[in-house]
Amino acid sequence: MTSPTQPSAPLPVNLHDFEVIAARVLPKMVYDYYAGGANDEVLLSSTRAAWDAIEIRYRVMRDVSARSWACKVLGQSLSWPVMIAPMAMQRMAHAEGELATAHAANQLATGMVLSTLSTTSVEDVSAVLKQPLWFQLYIEKDRGATKALVERAHEAGCRALVLTVDTPLLGRRERDVRNQFHLKADMPFPHLRVAAGDALVAQEATTSSLATYVASQWDASISWKDLAWLQSITTLPILVKGVVRADDAVMALESGAAGVIVSNHGGRQLDASVTTVGALPEIANAMAGRGALLVDGGVRRGTDVLKAIALGAHAVLLGRPVLWGLSAGGVDGVKQVLQLLRDEFDLAMALSGCRGVGEITSDLVA
Amino acid sequence: MTSPTQPSAPLPVNLHDFEVIAARVLPKMVYDYYAGGANDEVLLSSTRAAWDAIEIRYRVMRDVSARSWACKVLGQSLSWPVMIAPMAMQRMAHAEGELATAHAANQLATGMVLSTLSTTSVEDVSAVLKQPLWFQLYIEKDRGATKALVERAHEAGCRALVLTVDTPLLGRRERDVRNQFHLKADMPFPHLRVAAGDALVAQEATTSSLATYVASQWDASISWKDLAWLQSITTLPILVKGVVRADDAVMALESGAAGVIVSNHGGRQLDASVTTVGALPEIANAMAGRGALLVDGGVRRGTDVLKAIALGAHAVLLGRPVLWGLSAGGVDGVKQVLQLLRDEFDLAMALSGCRGVGEITSDLVA
Amino acid sequence: MTSPTQPSAPLPVNLHDFEVIAARVLPKMVYDYYAGGANDEVLLSSTRAAWDAIEIRYRVMRDVSARSWACKVLGQSLSWPVMIAPMAMQRMAHAEGELATAHAANQLATGMVLSTLSTTSVEDVSAVLKQPLWFQLYIEKDRGATKALVERAHEAGCRALVLTVDTPLLGRRERDVRNQFHLKADMPFPHLRVAAGDALVAQEATTSSLATYVASQWDASISWKDLAWLQSITTLPILVKGVVRADDAVMALESGAAGVIVSNHGGRQLDASVTTVGALPEIANAMAGRGALLVDGGVRRGTDVLKAIALGAHAVLLGRPVLWGLSAGGVDGVKQVLQLLRDEFDLAMALSGCRGVGEITSDLVA
Amino acid sequence: MTSPTQPSAPLPVNLHDFEVIAARVLPKMVYDYYAGGANDEVLLSSTRAAWDAIEIRYRVMRDVSARSWACKVLGQSLSWPVMIAPMAMQRMAHAEGELATAHAANQLATGMVLSTLSTTSVEDVSAVLKQPLWFQLYIEKDRGATKALVERAHEAGCRALVLTVDTPLLGRRERDVRNQFHLKADMPFPHLRVAAGDALVAQEATTSSLATYVASQWDASISWKDLAWLQSITTLPILVKGVVRADDAVMALESGAAGVIVSNHGGRQLDASVTTVGALPEIANAMAGRGALLVDGGVRRGTDVLKAIALGAHAVLLGRPVLWGLSAGGVDGVKQVLQLLRDEFDLAMALSGCRGVGEITSDLVA
Repeated sequence: MTSPTQPSAPLPVNLHDFEVIAARVLPKMVYDYYAGGANDEVLLSSTRAAWDAIEIRYRVMRDVSARSWACKVLGQSLSWPVMIAPMAMQRMAHAEGELATAHAANQLATGMVLSTLSTTSVEDVSAVLKQPLWFQLYIEKDRGATKALVERAHEAGCRALVLTVDTPLLGRRERDVRNQFHLKADMPFPHLRVAAGDALVAQEATTSSLATYVASQWDASISWKDLAWLQSITTLPILVKGVVRADDAVMALESGAAGVIVSNHGGRQLDASVTTVGALPEIANAMAGRGALLVDGGVRRGTDVLKAIALGAHAVLLGRPVLWGLSAGGVDGVKQVLQLLRDEFDLAMALSGCRGVGEITSDLVA
Repeated sequence: MTSPTQPSAPLPVNLHDFEVIAARVLPKMVYDYYAGGANDEVLLSSTRAAWDAIEIRYRVMRDVSARSWACKVLGQSLSWPVMIAPMAMQRMAHAEGELATAHAANQLATGMVLSTLSTTSVEDVSAVLKQPLWFQLYIEKDRGATKALVERAHEAGCRALVLTVDTPLLGRRERDVRNQFHLKADMPFPHLRVAAGDALVAQEATTSSLATYVASQWDASISWKDLAWLQSITTLPILVKGVVRADDAVMALESGAAGVIVSNHGGRQLDASVTTVGALPEIANAMAGRGALLVDGGVRRGTDVLKAIALGAHAVLLGRPVLWGLSAGGVDGVKQVLQLLRDEFDLAMALSGCRGVGEITSDLVA
Repeated sequence: MTSPTQPSAPLPVNLHDFEVIAARVLPKMVYDYYAGGANDEVLLSSTRAAWDAIEIRYRVMRDVSARSWACKVLGQSLSWPVMIAPMAMQRMAHAEGELATAHAANQLATGMVLSTLSTTSVEDVSAVLKQPLWFQLYIEKDRGATKALVERAHEAGCRALVLTVDTPLLGRRERDVRNQFHLKADMPFPHLRVAAGDALVAQEATTSSLATYVASQWDASISWKDLAWLQSITTLPILVKGVVRADDAVMALESGAAGVIVSNHGGRQLDASVTTVGALPEIANAMAGRGALLVDGGVRRGTDVLKAIALGAHAVLLGRPVLWGLSAGGVDGVKQVLQLLRDEFDLAMALSGCRGVGEITSDLVA
Repeated sequence: MTSPTQPSAPLPVNLHDFEVIAARVLPKMVYDYYAGGANDEVLLSSTRAAWDAIEIRYRVMRDVSARSWACKVLGQSLSWPVMIAPMAMQRMAHAEGELATAHAANQLATGMVLSTLSTTSVEDVSAVLKQPLWFQLYIEKDRGATKALVERAHEAGCRALVLTVDTPLLGRRERDVRNQFHLKADMPFPHLRVAAGDALVAQEATTSSLATYVASQWDASISWKDLAWLQSITTLPILVKGVVRADDAVMALESGAAGVIVSNHGGRQLDASVTTVGALPEIANAMAGRGALLVDGGVRRGTDVLKAIALGAHAVLLGRPVLWGLSAGGVDGVKQVLQLLRDEFDLAMALSGCRGVGEITSDLVA
């Protein structure tokens, strides 16, 4: 499906093109870290196949001369239903890292979720970003550290927390194991304590340094009561990310979450798991409109965004393509990626007979 | 599936062979314009797969010594249930363009739908064609221009209008973007105002000139009331082309249309859409015999024509293969393409136990 | 799936190996004639896929130390439920043609259906064959010729007639068209009148000589009453070959046939038709034990024979592999092919817990 | 799916890597014997496809900080629900053969099923193995020999018998036929009588020596009453291996078996049979908790183990990967294979929200 950039057309024309460029400009260890999935990477291909298998039953003759992409998630206004997914260590892709991403997000009016493993501080990102900023976190064994991070994110201006729950341990990403994945010694981790960050530099024979770090720092014992605890220490709304079952989505709401992000961590945790596209309808049905519902995983086309909304999501998170744009051209690369996707989404709405996000209804994919 | 023409067999034996020839003789920019689809071109392959997946439950011992292909669409007699689809700019394929197509259509007694983007005037085509001629159009922002075109088509002898409704904006055809698709300065567009036609010559970096033209001239605001308006200014029957949903088909009939053409614009508009083969049965069921029902998209074999009719269509429109024939050999090329398809359809009827089009019933594909 | 014969193993180990040898030793025009199907040859691959998709739910602990393959079809005893399908012009494959096939059939106690287009006379074959001999025919325009052929077959010792009904016209076999398929002038056709046989020698530009012959000699007007007529002029039981629908199977019985052969002519007539594997269950169900039921098409493994019987057939006809054996080694080649298949069938019975053909029941494939 | 070991990563990271190594270090005849399946090897690929098609609906927030893999099968404690499948002639893979396997099993606390065709005596293996040891056998024509073997296994300390019932005759393994598979003259077969073992050394033109041996020694006449007989001569529990149908599983229990192993002999007996993954649910349902239920076939990932248990199995048998580890590195190779699989299973439990084997329930795969 990838359409390689051709000599006669120096400008990338779709998100696939940016991955081709990134694969060329990034060191293999870095490209593999971003591109890879767990184990056999079955989920990477099944996810794209699942998106492609959904056919849009578009409507015609609906006066689509004026279209609005505006929507609300958690009561926050988004100018279009795409936010940037939390992705670690963006300075590996480009020297300006998360700041470049934030600048590009401004230009396309795109919200952003900052990773705990960001290589730029939440304060610096917040100072730049004029769109909704959310903070992604794990519950660490050291609850005090977690609480401090929550407060810091709040004070920095984040408007929601995203609690990742699919990572009690790190998935087995075999590319990283083969590459003995590790970080440069000078890579900043402003949200990690120094001692912890140092661990990521180690080069290990049979695992990635990240897996070792996760096992030592994060808390595999978390359960729904910890979500209640987290909610008790903050007034920020919490989204639970990594849910693929209706019962877990309902439990998240009942434990105080403001919403759910259907995600399998981009295929990087449990390779044999259900696709997010496959899990979305039952979760949307079980939530029945209570709480925010987002989805990520494999989104590469504007029509994917439209499909996600038709299947019940309020918005999608865009992951790897942002990294490909960042690798290819920093601010400008991310901007192009977001622009292409927004243009595609806009065209998909027009060609499906939708004037607003609210008209992207389930009959379009039934 | 393509069977390349072999040195020892200079005569093409099927429609695939003509595409192979066309790909060789046409400039890449032109071949890509004709052959390409939108975005990932998923629909091009899913459409062929959908045709191939339908199995004919043929009948035997039905005395098929005499077979009739005659049928009626809109009360107009067709000698066989295939018409030539509206296709733009046929002079790009061959110097004689639409006139060559019309001459070939005469020889095989095939009706023809002329595109608004024809490079030959409707008057000139009408002067040649001895078979039903229909005129395809869009509703332009300038309703006066649209009205004038309708009247001109009527006066020229067209017997129906085909209103394309799947193109409020042009689909993203990435081959054209990469090729910076544009037209030669001397290409005639007798149905466009000169100023508009000139726009098609421009070479743009990030889009095709056609997309720019469409956005500036055609009206993305059209809705079902515009269909009623169009019907109010003409006594010609109107077919609505680009429908893939039962509710839209019914709405078309209720808005005054004489029928529906199930089409997704040959996969050139919304890549992720449903196949026409997939959409046809529910539309045939909803129309329940009211109005004409045609289908296009991916027809390459006589058995596809038979399947389409068994699924509820009254006739099919043949698109790209006509262009391949035109590119390969002008009048004679188109004639061969039509002859091959008619022979295949005739044989398919004989081998399915059908003596007439009326015997091509749904039990053949159930 | 083909397992090429390897230098270290000069003996073919399965039926696929024989096709590899045949493709090497036969002239391309002849190999293509035998191997090819109609049009896109979709049916050739869908048929193998259909066989492979059926999974055997084998039984264990059934005392399979003694197994019997004996069965009855039309009241005639077969030592195993496989007969040789009617296949034209076997002298193209090997100088001894149908006589070699008959000698090999004797050695494996396999019955044989002789084609009207045989290059050996029914009398000569009958003189050799010690197993059931059936005669395959078409109804010719010249009913007198048909009647004479029926009487001749009867007198020669044939014990059933196989009326092929899927060929009112010859399917479009594009390999043959490309190859300008024709026969050598000295090829004997003892069941054709000389004038007719001569037509097969002509080399034509856009078709195969066989297609021209069929159109001129066979009767496309035949219907169920002609079956009644055929039955009226002979006391031989008649099997109707080429049926893929339950209603046609029932009609065959009601028109006097003694049974039905589910066949699509090895994918050589209507390419887009249903597979015989797919059609078999509904036909078996509709016939409900009345009349003989056989199937052909794509049988390459002993497990295919077992599956066919479990799906309701009484026996299968084996086609192309016999020709591959004949091409590879005359009598001995056919013998090896039959021996391999019988050994495979025997092993399939043992491993499925079946002591006799009657124990090959539908629960094995449900 | 195979991930080749790369120069920069000398340590294999998954079970696939070990097959790549084994294919390089083993003689072709030996590798083919281990790797091959019957006939077209359809079952080898359909089995992997069947595992991959099952998607895990993982749970989150379940406090998986402490996980237990302990389980019981036949009342015997297993430290994790994987045992080593009975596999013949392990000295072909490595000079230390079954003893190496046993040593590795100790290190990972894995039980082991010893094959009758072991090249190490049950006494020697038992002297080493500190985990459950079961003995696999066939019922031989010579019931006295069978009885003696049962008593010998019991006295050697085996705690269960595994009766293989899918092999009344040996499957047609075409790689072995092509390779004229045979054994070295000095290969020990401590559980076979000398005369019988000698037969395995013969090199035959059209079969493997093993097929000849099986046909001469084992009893194709066995039926359910022979299971009763076997149970009558021993107090050891008997598991019936090779069942793929619910009715056969129930019959096994009713004939005195202590449980069932769903198996198709690794695709080496009846190529066209149902996959074990496909057969497992109906068998689990029919057994309804009575007796032990194990499964083998194609297990390559920790998630496969989890899926098997979610589908109703109490444990799985691991086959070929053990041989690849043995070939690659003797004790250490097998140890690494088991370690990798146990680590993967542990991670799969954690990422699925399971703290113990009892929490691996059917809703995870529904």
